[in-house]
Amino acid sequence: MALLLRAATWGLSSGRGYCSRGTQGSLREVFVAALRAVVGPPHVSTSIAVREQHGRDESMHRCQPPDVVVWPQNVDQVSRLTALCYSHGVPIIPFGTGTGLEGGVCAVQGGVCMNLTHMDRITALNLEDFSVVVEPGVTRKALNTHLRDSGLWFPVDPGSDASLCGMAATGASGTNAVRYGTMRDNILNLEVVLPSGQLLHTAGPGRHFRKSAAGYNLTGLFVGSEGTLGLITAATLRLHPVPEATVAATCAFPSVQAAVDSTVHILQAAVPVARIEFLDDVMMDACNRHSQLNCVVAPTLFLEFHGSEQALVEQLQRAEEITQHNGGSHFSWAKEAEERSRLWAARHNAWYAALALRPGCKGYSTDVCVPISRLPEILVQTKEDLKASGLTGAIVGHVGDGNFHCILLVDPEDPEELHRVEAFAQQLGRRALALHGTCTGEHGIGLGKRQLLQEEVGAVGVETMRQLKATLDPRGLMNPGKVL
Amino acid sequence: MALLLRAATWGLSSGRGYCSRGTQGSLREVFVAALRAVVGPPHVSTSIAVREQHGRDESMHRCQPPDVVVWPQNVDQVSRLTALCYSHGVPIIPFGTGTGLEGGVCAVQGGVCMNLTHMDRITALNLEDFSVVVEPGVTRKALNTHLRDSGLWFPVDPGSDASLCGMAATGASGTNAVRYGTMRDNILNLEVVLPSGQLLHTAGPGRHFRKSAAGYNLTGLFVGSEGTLGLITAATLRLHPVPEATVAATCAFPSVQAAVDSTVHILQAAVPVARIEFLDDVMMDACNRHSQLNCVVAPTLFLEFHGSEQALVEQLQRAEEITQHNGGSHFSWAKEAEERSRLWAARHNAWYAALALRPGCKGYSTDVCVPISRLPEILVQTKEDLKASGLTGAIVGHVGDGNFHCILLVDPEDPEELHRVEAFAQQLGRRALALHGTCTGEHGIGLGKRQLLQEEVGAVGVETMRQLKATLDPRGLMNPGKVL
Repeated sequence: MALLLRAATWGLSSGRGYCSRGTQGSLREVFVAALRAVVGPPHVSTSIAVREQHGRDESMHRCQPPDVVVWPQNVDQVSRLTALCYSHGVPIIPFGTGTGLEGGVCAVQGGVCMNLTHMDRITALNLEDFSVVVEPGVTRKALNTHLRDSGLWFPVDPGSDASLCGMAATGASGTNAVRYGTMRDNILNLEVVLPSGQLLHTAGPGRHFRKSAAGYNLTGLFVGSEGTLGLITAATLRLHPVPEATVAATCAFPSVQAAVDSTVHILQAAVPVARIEFLDDVMMDACNRHSQLNCVVAPTLFLEFHGSEQALVEQLQRAEEITQHNGGSHFSWAKEAEERSRLWAARHNAWYAALALRPGCKGYSTDVCVPISRLPEILVQTKEDLKASGLTGAIVGHVGDGNFHCILLVDPEDPEELHRVEAFAQQLGRRALALHGTCTGEHGIGLGKRQLLQEEVGAVGVETMRQLKATLDPRGLMNPGKVL
Repeated sequence: MALLLRAATWGLSSGRGYCSRGTQGSLREVFVAALRAVVGPPHVSTSIAVREQHGRDESMHRCQPPDVVVWPQNVDQVSRLTALCYSHGVPIIPFGTGTGLEGGVCAVQGGVCMNLTHMDRITALNLEDFSVVVEPGVTRKALNTHLRDSGLWFPVDPGSDASLCGMAATGASGTNAVRYGTMRDNILNLEVVLPSGQLLHTAGPGRHFRKSAAGYNLTGLFVGSEGTLGLITAATLRLHPVPEATVAATCAFPSVQAAVDSTVHILQAAVPVARIEFLDDVMMDACNRHSQLNCVVAPTLFLEFHGSEQALVEQLQRAEEITQHNGGSHFSWAKEAEERSRLWAARHNAWYAALALRPGCKGYSTDVCVPISRLPEILVQTKEDLKASGLTGAIVGHVGDGNFHCILLVDPEDPEELHRVEAFAQQLGRRALALHGTCTGEHGIGLGKRQLLQEEVGAVGVETMRQLKATLDPRGLMNPGKVL
């Protein structure tokens, strides 16, 4: 059987439609039977509907379905499936919650999509060590629900209820990064199935120490590798103590510059702000409408503070002094949990609020990050570019990190508008690069930013990345077409 | 000339003494002349004294001098020297302040030592972006002196006044890591000369953003690579605001367990302690004598708190409630800068205080790190092992990270004792591994811990590291014999 299968030029044949007949079709049937033998027949699907569900994420990249979807039940099955695919030259695409924004799951060469969500155990929780081990099916919210009475939580929060291992794979971050760091800062160890099917523990099996200087930082290499080097089958995460008290506030500003200046001054004053989010006037207007807020339509900061009751009083006072010095409004408070949730729900629903600006349109989110001193300049330029392009777009950002998104609305039936959106996004990426920034703060490279990545890291950088990829995935079968 | 030189089997010949005559000698003279042509004659030395200065660090690893020492004056010279060495098969050993503790600079195959300390400029300082770019000759203290009036500082503090690029190369950390993270957490970008002589900017040229999801994390790969993948010629570091106020305190405990429990409870209570250091009774006794302290001889915590005046009051109160609940003494305060400096000078001079326990002896520092819950157990075991071995050793540790050092004293003229020290260190490393820890929290693998690294990361981990090394340094000339 192996011989027969080896002959298949999987994913390169033109007959990608799975129902094709003839030699290719029957070879594939034999291969699919081999997959079924590993995971059991209920855990393999070749139905068009299922494949299409797995061929896209939440971005505008067009659906590119895999040839087969499998649901491994444990890491041993992942190893066997991976070895099987690899030895037969079949592309492998890891799949978590499908909430990515850069087309990371599109099966550009077909192949086998591994939906890892059936592996959903929390396999270890060490409260004294502030660490937890999660499988790929465990989402951010599920973990925090599990931790509810423990006094600890996992703060990295990209908004959507993503798989934590998927967040590791994309190097996600979100609203709490300014205080608690990104996924890169909060992963202690990863279990990775390499293309060969071998199991790698990036920091050694079972290890969950806080720091180490032992050899090359393999954990760091796999975080953000977007499934192109191996499949993450478990992540050991660093937990944080739940703050004793939390207060949120909003503050409106006369200008973008004033909002950003306030952010820099708050950081310089070492106020340990937990979240500091910027929304432009368009975004505020959209949020007011969509989430029934009653905020001033102006450049606005959403802030959140974590600490003891006593510490919060001081943090708020200092922050408000700074914002008022920069012409900001008085803080509008949200101290009670319910009120605070409403505010942050509005922030997290910014995407949907923006979509509601032009019903029937789809959204595209840019994701640049610049040194914080360059934020006012690029935000002002971006608003001018928006006007000039005639596009509808709202700006929202993790301003404490210099990271912001422009949510653009596009009529999917209008190829000319789609083209303008893409051109705008490329231009914004290049603006960020010109200001010593990056083309992606947290969404990853995926399909659409490969050219920008080259411009960002330069020829030697890209060549070094290519060498690493070729070393760990010599046949180029791990999530092909992404990153490089 | 190139042809002649290429024939030289540099570093593999038996005649390592530089004064050897004959073909090897003259080939080398031609090569040294080529080095001189790059950097100028005053910046090359083959004198025995200079070579021996560069053949060892502060550890007990025996001196293994390079064949030549060169002092490049700029990155272009580093590139040219590296390309020259690489094309002729000559090993390259980067050298900063020589303050390493694992033999990282020993020239085990001879070759060219590149002393990078003449490159000592601070080439960019972006106060609003909290970032700075330093060359390899800039030390931790020099940077903080330069920053004195800026309101910012660089907190990673391994004790010695090491080169910041060297600290990047070893993945250093030290006393402030519990609050501010290690070098891994505080590097935004690295300029690296690859073995080919090509210049790599790990995050792209000139970039200094706070976070990114753009491609593989090359910065993370080079941090802690101990000069085995390339030469770090500049580091972009993340700065932090200088705390408004600082208070230090000491607290004695009836047992090791009580001190560690206090640490865990302080962290769980989210008290943002800046430093929390453990010293055992032997270490306290030594510090009392060496630094004229007047502390109780008992397991002790040295603590430091950073924040506003008001925040400090609350932090201290909470921390003291916790320590007293665990049977600790009342805090002994050091609020004034001078008094605080004396206390931390005593902590940083722990190495010399330990050496003074047995005048004439040399010191060897172990460096394991375990999950914090396992600390009491390993500390108690370690003290028992010390007794059983008949060795003199004092324990000091960054207990908030689970990282501790046992400073062992050994008579360099006593090979049997040296053997016992080595056996003790190996045993301690294995104890840490058995408790899901690491064999090195911050000193690196260097020469002495290569076997332990294999046990720590396992066969697949080591093989993956070997593949990365072979990819980036195919001829194995970058600081050979280290890490792997």
